Amino acid sequence: MMKYQPLHPDRLFSAELSIRSAAREIYQGIKDLPIISPHGHTDPDWYASNKPFDNAASFLVTPDHYVFRMLYSQGISLESMGIPAARKDVTVESDPRKIWKLFAENFHLFRSTPSRLWMNHALTEVLGVDEPLNGESADRIFDHIEKQLASEAFLPRNLFRRFNIEVLSTTEFAVDTLDAHKKIQEEWDGRIVTTFRPDDVTNPEHPKFREHMQIMAEQTDEDVASWDHYLEAIRKRRRFFKSMGATATDHGFPTAFTTLLPAGQCQTLLTRALEGTITPEEAELFRGHMLVENGRMSREDGLVMQIHVGCSRDHNQTVYSRFGADKGCDIPTPVNFVDGFKALLNEVGNDPDVTIIAFSMDETTYTREIAPLAGHYPALKVGPAWWFHDSPEGMMRYRRQVVETAGFYNTVGFNDDTRAFLSIPARHDVARRVDSNFLAHQVCEHLLTIDEAHEVARDLTYNLPKKAYRL
Amino acid sequence: MMKYQPLHPDRLFSAELSIRSAAREIYQGIKDLPIISPHGHTDPDWYASNKPFDNAASFLVTPDHYVFRMLYSQGISLESMGIPAARKDVTVESDPRKIWKLFAENFHLFRSTPSRLWMNHALTEVLGVDEPLNGESADRIFDHIEKQLASEAFLPRNLFRRFNIEVLSTTEFAVDTLDAHKKIQEEWDGRIVTTFRPDDVTNPEHPKFREHMQIMAEQTDEDVASWDHYLEAIRKRRRFFKSMGATATDHGFPTAFTTLLPAGQCQTLLTRALEGTITPEEAELFRGHMLVENGRMSREDGLVMQIHVGCSRDHNQTVYSRFGADKGCDIPTPVNFVDGFKALLNEVGNDPDVTIIAFSMDETTYTREIAPLAGHYPALKVGPAWWFHDSPEGMMRYRRQVVETAGFYNTVGFNDDTRAFLSIPARHDVARRVDSNFLAHQVCEHLLTIDEAHEVARDLTYNLPKKAYRL
Amino acid sequence: MMKYQPLHPDRLFSAELSIRSAAREIYQGIKDLPIISPHGHTDPDWYASNKPFDNAASFLVTPDHYVFRMLYSQGISLESMGIPAARKDVTVESDPRKIWKLFAENFHLFRSTPSRLWMNHALTEVLGVDEPLNGESADRIFDHIEKQLASEAFLPRNLFRRFNIEVLSTTEFAVDTLDAHKKIQEEWDGRIVTTFRPDDVTNPEHPKFREHMQIMAEQTDEDVASWDHYLEAIRKRRRFFKSMGATATDHGFPTAFTTLLPAGQCQTLLTRALEGTITPEEAELFRGHMLVENGRMSREDGLVMQIHVGCSRDHNQTVYSRFGADKGCDIPTPVNFVDGFKALLNEVGNDPDVTIIAFSMDETTYTREIAPLAGHYPALKVGPAWWFHDSPEGMMRYRRQVVETAGFYNTVGFNDDTRAFLSIPARHDVARRVDSNFLAHQVCEHLLTIDEAHEVARDLTYNLPKKAYRL
Repeated sequence: MMKYQPLHPDRLFSAELSIRSAAREIYQGIKDLPIISPHGHTDPDWYASNKPFDNAASFLVTPDHYVFRMLYSQGISLESMGIPAARKDVTVESDPRKIWKLFAENFHLFRSTPSRLWMNHALTEVLGVDEPLNGESADRIFDHIEKQLASEAFLPRNLFRRFNIEVLSTTEFAVDTLDAHKKIQEEWDGRIVTTFRPDDVTNPEHPKFREHMQIMAEQTDEDVASWDHYLEAIRKRRRFFKSMGATATDHGFPTAFTTLLPAGQCQTLLTRALEGTITPEEAELFRGHMLVENGRMSREDGLVMQIHVGCSRDHNQTVYSRFGADKGCDIPTPVNFVDGFKALLNEVGNDPDVTIIAFSMDETTYTREIAPLAGHYPALKVGPAWWFHDSPEGMMRYRRQVVETAGFYNTVGFNDDTRAFLSIPARHDVARRVDSNFLAHQVCEHLLTIDEAHEVARDLTYNLPKKAYRL
Repeated sequence: MMKYQPLHPDRLFSAELSIRSAAREIYQGIKDLPIISPHGHTDPDWYASNKPFDNAASFLVTPDHYVFRMLYSQGISLESMGIPAARKDVTVESDPRKIWKLFAENFHLFRSTPSRLWMNHALTEVLGVDEPLNGESADRIFDHIEKQLASEAFLPRNLFRRFNIEVLSTTEFAVDTLDAHKKIQEEWDGRIVTTFRPDDVTNPEHPKFREHMQIMAEQTDEDVASWDHYLEAIRKRRRFFKSMGATATDHGFPTAFTTLLPAGQCQTLLTRALEGTITPEEAELFRGHMLVENGRMSREDGLVMQIHVGCSRDHNQTVYSRFGADKGCDIPTPVNFVDGFKALLNEVGNDPDVTIIAFSMDETTYTREIAPLAGHYPALKVGPAWWFHDSPEGMMRYRRQVVETAGFYNTVGFNDDTRAFLSIPARHDVARRVDSNFLAHQVCEHLLTIDEAHEVARDLTYNLPKKAYRL
Repeated sequence: MMKYQPLHPDRLFSAELSIRSAAREIYQGIKDLPIISPHGHTDPDWYASNKPFDNAASFLVTPDHYVFRMLYSQGISLESMGIPAARKDVTVESDPRKIWKLFAENFHLFRSTPSRLWMNHALTEVLGVDEPLNGESADRIFDHIEKQLASEAFLPRNLFRRFNIEVLSTTEFAVDTLDAHKKIQEEWDGRIVTTFRPDDVTNPEHPKFREHMQIMAEQTDEDVASWDHYLEAIRKRRRFFKSMGATATDHGFPTAFTTLLPAGQCQTLLTRALEGTITPEEAELFRGHMLVENGRMSREDGLVMQIHVGCSRDHNQTVYSRFGADKGCDIPTPVNFVDGFKALLNEVGNDPDVTIIAFSMDETTYTREIAPLAGHYPALKVGPAWWFHDSPEGMMRYRRQVVETAGFYNTVGFNDDTRAFLSIPARHDVARRVDSNFLAHQVCEHLLTIDEAHEVARDLTYNLPKKAYRL
């Protein structure tokens, strides 16, 4: 009888034998390199408290929006998957075993998706499951995972070591007190760094804007209603994050619009934002200007600036009102970096000491905008294939469309960008395989030598993310 | 001497032998499945009257806009191809033999286009032609086809059986009396169903809008000038179509815009539409609202809702004025589903009992919009690669760009969408081959097992279209 | 020891052996065909004066914006690369050996870019360099090139012969006196033709608009402030260019917008343009109308009309103010040909005697707009993959996305479009290889016979550009 093998050793490599052989060789040279995870969304409390994870459902299903969005798209309610509700009148399933079984019964929906690759990797490589996941095996696998999670080896810090993570970034809002990071630093030598994400105090339409502005005022002892003091407050928070290990900021706005406004207009917009009378058009101006201000601050303090734009958040109002944000109903939108980034790049883009990493879910911008811009402006680098494009085809499109114009050295390696801890090694493995396969094509079509391919592979996996993020 | 073989048994399969071998095996499992044709534009009178088709030119050239647009693009006049004129002062070629010869002499223009694949399939597999089509062979082939078409075997109903069509949809406007469908049902057990396409009464800019509104008023005994009664009239027509076998509606509008307007505004727009005083902006509002109304009606009556948007119709005003609509001068336009579909999806998109199938000729929407939306909203499914993208490369791009985010099970298999009867088996065969080849890649890169690939192939070919269209 | 071989004989061919074998065979049939270069930007003075080129840096680095933009993106200043400054207060490196060394030290940045392919081709095939370029070899290679450039064989006219160029186009503004072309025609039989590029007198925002209008008035003895005489002046310049061998015009505007305005409005816009009071919106109208006027003139005089749109010129204001135009800071923008070209195509697009060749850097338009439009309008042809997309992946995307809808015969072969003389044979070689590889795929997937592939390859390489450009 054939061994159950959901993860073939040659998965994701071309079927053409010379390419496969080169891909294997290149992959061999990078597969054991430490993981550099410069951008992600795991919970720092996991590493701070180092408590066991709960169960298969709350560990693998309910926190993973890739997983529950697919089930939801096939008519399975979020309630039945135990997704925590935002409203008290919404009752959700509380039995993790039932939730797990529901997922298992529908695992075939994930055929040919990256989620299946990640899940199979987590189940077999990390959790030691030795049979396929389906309705019939669901209970046994649930029990198996329960046992595993209760073991010492599965405590967050031990998994972190086992995953060979050299450094991992989390992402926190501007007013976060970073207590978890403090505890980690005091107790443990695993390198977890925070990232400064000030959307809560730079986007007047952020639901917590006014509340967090108030907190920031107290934290910094600055009158945030006054434009200069508001900027100073942000500078102080950046310094605090930097003192706690942050090397980067992150900015998640609806569009790529940036602009440079006169100080008087900035004060007016700030006043309206704090009053709650700012219009959508004014909020866009405010955000656009604040990207340039943060660019200037990056020039001062050396924090790397990440920009994630082009997402229509909470497209599904029913789901948002019942379950809140990040429930799989964020949809990419068309982005214009050429006009949008003009003010920002003209302000700080010519400075080689500034690093701006731009992420795009609008793949049309790869060849039209992002690669040409990053292939010119010293400050701009292209972030890896993001979100829905963090997938084998997505990453291959990215390489094929970005490298010819921007080269490898205006890219920054891989980001796992995940909330799902167990998917970290899986995602890095997929990225390493796809890069190896891409480079193998280049070698076999005589565009790179095998020695160059090895060097580029190590750069993409390890050197470029460390350098770009100053880690 | 080598046999003339325009259709190699391995056509469209990868040259890489392990993939080709897997593709052959997968294809073998689906090639003889019955054809499900849930969306198309063949003429129901063919099956109702069951008269012989005329000749090679009127059967294969003049009705096929893919064919005559290519000849026209190379400077060959529509007049010389015998395309029926819309104006009396335009004289067109009436000798089918001459038209056929003109086509044959220029058949090399179709190299590497899907039209050539379809035509060669029709000529060799269906019509039994055993030599290549060119100027020299044109007359002989014309005669051969003439003989074939006159034979019993080539009567429409017999071809329908021979093509192994289990069910085929036609498309009719809202006021169609469906006499042909009635005759078919009374006389024959071939399953031909209609599709309700109410653009003539929901798009105020449709050339027959006012005329058809008058007819609909009479057909339904409703005062269509009154908003509520207008909606009721549409409901009645939907019921009539459903009673005649329709399982779906279809909506072909310029943009993806949807909106929900107050009833008072709806009445005002309706009044202006009937007066002929509605502005283009108001017509867009009217159409956008009517998509939501039809979505609501689909929730009531269970008809599947198809939406085809993003086409600039009759771009060439000279051709339009001389020859009328559908003359190859319809050009795709950029589409925004994310903003456009928001009202519709927020109204009915969370209902798993509603099915909305969206088609896009703007391929940039595959990864950016359509796959993410369909991978979330229970009601939304992704229609197959449409029109210009119903081609080997187009279908492969579709699979590579849609599946990772939406999975296979938010897609609905293949539509032939054709006016050219003989191209039906050819088009389904191309789709089956491309899917087999795509799945073979997945198998050989170890992302699917061969057993899964077989199952997915059968789903894409047979189960998914039947389920999605409720056939 | 292995011979240094940066250019493998099978480079750019698929690793799959049957495709590689077919690609080799197809390439063999076209590799020695003469070069037709119907659009480019080399300096006609080179061929007129036939003086030796200076040195490696001024020949290969400073004129090539692909090269210095990549170095600039990695923090290397334009000053240190000796890029000529536009302002007197900017001092730039003047030692060509230092510039060359800087380039050589950073040559790894170009891995997997087309620039590396072109440079390696120029170094090894043309200049006879027999070792890899890097910091260590830089000086030796500099000396070697210096010797070569001083030799008789490297005089421009001799290189032109050696490159087997049958005809080469340069591009000149409307008021150019074409003295260099006159000298070439008097002295030499190498076929160099000019192209009429009237942006300087049709784009009111062109920096030299008013100056060149004044010159044109004198050249043509027409009162260019009067609309009819302005058009007549342009007609006269077209006639002059045509008399000097031009077969084509070229139009480089920001957008694809075209329109047809009443004569009164044209006069008003012209007056404002000459006064310098025209607004950006009015300038867009003026340009849009002038594209249609030039289309009409093409119908009269038979000059082929090229249109290059969709580029945000001089995006980087710092670089522009210090170094002027064409310094690598031109970035593609989204383009809409469907709406944009409507006026132009409705005016002259149905005339098979008119040829309009459209170029796009917005690849999303390939399948959505350009291929469908060119597959319908007799006058419209698709220009080859342009600028950033003149690359192996870019050209392959172009073929895969254009051919199925437009066929091969609505395309026009390859343009090298270069300012870098030595890259001409390299670029044509890359194009021939990519086309051979594309056709080999078609042969091995049984979509074309090998005989057809040979014929199409010769058409793409030689017959189509000659025919489309009337050369």
